[in-house]
Amino acid sequence: MTVEIICVGTELLLGNIVNTNAAFLAERCAGLGLACYYQTVVGDNEGRLAGVLGTAMERSDIVILSGGLGPTEDDLTKEVAAKVCGKELVLHEPSRAAIERFFAERGTVPTENNWKQAMLPVDGVVLDNPNGTAPGVIMETKAAKVILLPGPPNELCPMFDSNVVPYLNKLTTRVICSQTVKVCGVGESRAETMVKDLIDTQTNPTIATYAKTGEVHIRVTAGAEDRKAAMKLIKPVVKELKSRFGNDIYTTEEDVTLEKAVAELLLANDLTVTCAESCTGGLLSARLINVPGISDVYKTGIVTYSNKAKKNILNVKKSTLQKYGAVSRQTAEEMAKGAAAFAKADVAVAVTGIAGPDGGTEEKPVGLVFIACCVKGKTTVDKYRFSGNRGKVRESAVAAALVLMRRCILEYFSEVTFGKKEK
Amino acid sequence: MTVEIICVGTELLLGNIVNTNAAFLAERCAGLGLACYYQTVVGDNEGRLAGVLGTAMERSDIVILSGGLGPTEDDLTKEVAAKVCGKELVLHEPSRAAIERFFAERGTVPTENNWKQAMLPVDGVVLDNPNGTAPGVIMETKAAKVILLPGPPNELCPMFDSNVVPYLNKLTTRVICSQTVKVCGVGESRAETMVKDLIDTQTNPTIATYAKTGEVHIRVTAGAEDRKAAMKLIKPVVKELKSRFGNDIYTTEEDVTLEKAVAELLLANDLTVTCAESCTGGLLSARLINVPGISDVYKTGIVTYSNKAKKNILNVKKSTLQKYGAVSRQTAEEMAKGAAAFAKADVAVAVTGIAGPDGGTEEKPVGLVFIACCVKGKTTVDKYRFSGNRGKVRESAVAAALVLMRRCILEYFSEVTFGKKEK
Repeated sequence: MTVEIICVGTELLLGNIVNTNAAFLAERCAGLGLACYYQTVVGDNEGRLAGVLGTAMERSDIVILSGGLGPTEDDLTKEVAAKVCGKELVLHEPSRAAIERFFAERGTVPTENNWKQAMLPVDGVVLDNPNGTAPGVIMETKAAKVILLPGPPNELCPMFDSNVVPYLNKLTTRVICSQTVKVCGVGESRAETMVKDLIDTQTNPTIATYAKTGEVHIRVTAGAEDRKAAMKLIKPVVKELKSRFGNDIYTTEEDVTLEKAVAELLLANDLTVTCAESCTGGLLSARLINVPGISDVYKTGIVTYSNKAKKNILNVKKSTLQKYGAVSRQTAEEMAKGAAAFAKADVAVAVTGIAGPDGGTEEKPVGLVFIACCVKGKTTVDKYRFSGNRGKVRESAVAAALVLMRRCILEYFSEVTFGKKEK
Repeated sequence: MTVEIICVGTELLLGNIVNTNAAFLAERCAGLGLACYYQTVVGDNEGRLAGVLGTAMERSDIVILSGGLGPTEDDLTKEVAAKVCGKELVLHEPSRAAIERFFAERGTVPTENNWKQAMLPVDGVVLDNPNGTAPGVIMETKAAKVILLPGPPNELCPMFDSNVVPYLNKLTTRVICSQTVKVCGVGESRAETMVKDLIDTQTNPTIATYAKTGEVHIRVTAGAEDRKAAMKLIKPVVKELKSRFGNDIYTTEEDVTLEKAVAELLLANDLTVTCAESCTGGLLSARLINVPGISDVYKTGIVTYSNKAKKNILNVKKSTLQKYGAVSRQTAEEMAKGAAAFAKADVAVAVTGIAGPDGGTEEKPVGLVFIACCVKGKTTVDKYRFSGNRGKVRESAVAAALVLMRRCILEYFSEVTFGKKEK
């Protein structure tokens, strides 16, 4: 079964935004075993959009469109797609009520153009949008199934996962299942080398590696007549990966992120935590606080971007800052220890580095970052050299800090256990 | 003159990578005044690639292809494009020598398939690739100019800027320019209603609105014989927008973000700043620290996710937390005042809310956020109700906090100025 992706938006054609929706939809469709041969971007223009959609419906079984469902006059994806599919637009009462509720809850009144979003193709499958006012819709025609999704990624992604995946699953007789083994602290090249023999010899399941910031995801995908049979094919491969990567695997669960794995480790061991951040400026705390339930262990976090703050709040010694500088092993270590004391936390992680674009020197170039992690008084400091712009350096530092936290906590407990055994 | 972008690669179709090349090429082409109506992604497949290229050459003046110029058997963009354009491939001696040099400099030897990259279409314009082994090439046919570029962004981008831009500049006689008016604190629907008459009546310049979290961008675009003439058409429209949106416009500069506008306001007025964050967990500080140079005014930031931290560090009264709760107008106000005192900052902004997915009640639902901003002792608190998942609520809260900071600082200074005038 073939699928084709059409992203609608002048912003894409002008290059103002990068097309992350296409990548998301393509990855999901590949995971569902759908073959995708074309992706197209087209603007909010009736003639061109109708042309592109018509071509796609001729050559593919399923066409997924994103964008152009908003309330403004520019947004005409639904109107054009309904026309091409030969469906009339009618008022969809539940969607109208949802829009009314959406605005009422916010104490505001919808403007006239908002009601346009409640006009939906007759006999279309309406997809609820809990994150916005534009519902999605599926239209079935003889030529193809046409699926319209809103453009904002935070609306499109959850709508796809909760509504479109079950729909697509029903269309195919063969199921494709996959399991992702998530590895941290191992570079992509090394990870790929470690599984190259498996990649070269396997056909079902297949194995693919995906580089993420600070982590590598290894996806094992199998096709079979049902989920149980597919998972049976996947199981021995995952077992083999576990034996190769050991503790560097932080999860094999789809919905567990690196920050969630770290949070679970903290919660399971009843360890309170704090972060002292310089160049990452709050991003590390923010990523940990992504995890619902973290409030049980997350203590105060501190953003100490200035040297003054490092001295006054974290008790970093003036002499340390003068002798080694703010971006140094010594400062990172004192920041972590100071943060643990300030927040009275079991685990404290400190990040200091040069995110750029300015501030780099030959000795301390942009991308140089020191991260310290203190677990119940024992402090580890690592030195990193990240590449890329300011945003990328900071993102890499946050991921590295999570990896280091995980490693230090695991090491702490393996030593504690070992100590007990010795007695 | 029209341009069309075709990106070739299975990894794009599988969603393994995001198509940053398309965004880069699109943005550059828009800047050159070329109209781009279509972008396509297709795999390394002869039939489909030839089909897509043929269609593009029929409907566009210039077709830019990226990817598929590598040395492997999969890479067939050049072979297919030459065939479609009716050009034979011949050995290009300078490219052969360049490949030899490239490997010699690295102390390695090219493999047999590397020489494939020196086979280039007869009478094509060869584009040097100082960053890799695949040269680019331009083929001119009656139907269209066809430009082939390598896929890796670090090869494609410099090749485009140094070789393709001068080539394209010679082709065009008309330029397209645009200016973006960035508005904050006004919803998209309201913004659009406010400019609807302009949108409806203008043809050159055109006006379009783009919704961002917490802000709306209004882009004014004009075509003319040169940049100066285009900007002359844009100027009166921008002036009209300024008179309609007044202080809600935070910039008309392309590279100024909301956080940069706030940072500039702080820096210009020598105001030090701190953030006390609960549900946003460090994201607000992180966004401010996105701005290089903010270190001159950014003091310590505090992430007070727990009530204990709110009490101990920010001096929020126990009775306030008990009587009104952590998510309340009163707590937000005390947080901001406490943060100003703790960090000895002129401006303190505090965020407390329910990001979800849990923790919501009928009285205090998920998405309820209070933001307080204290400027030199004068505190303003606003109540918000955001929609979406945990990530979206937090992102919206961060944007709203920046908008509130900006408003409070502007109000503070208008009052100060007013006070002075009175004397």
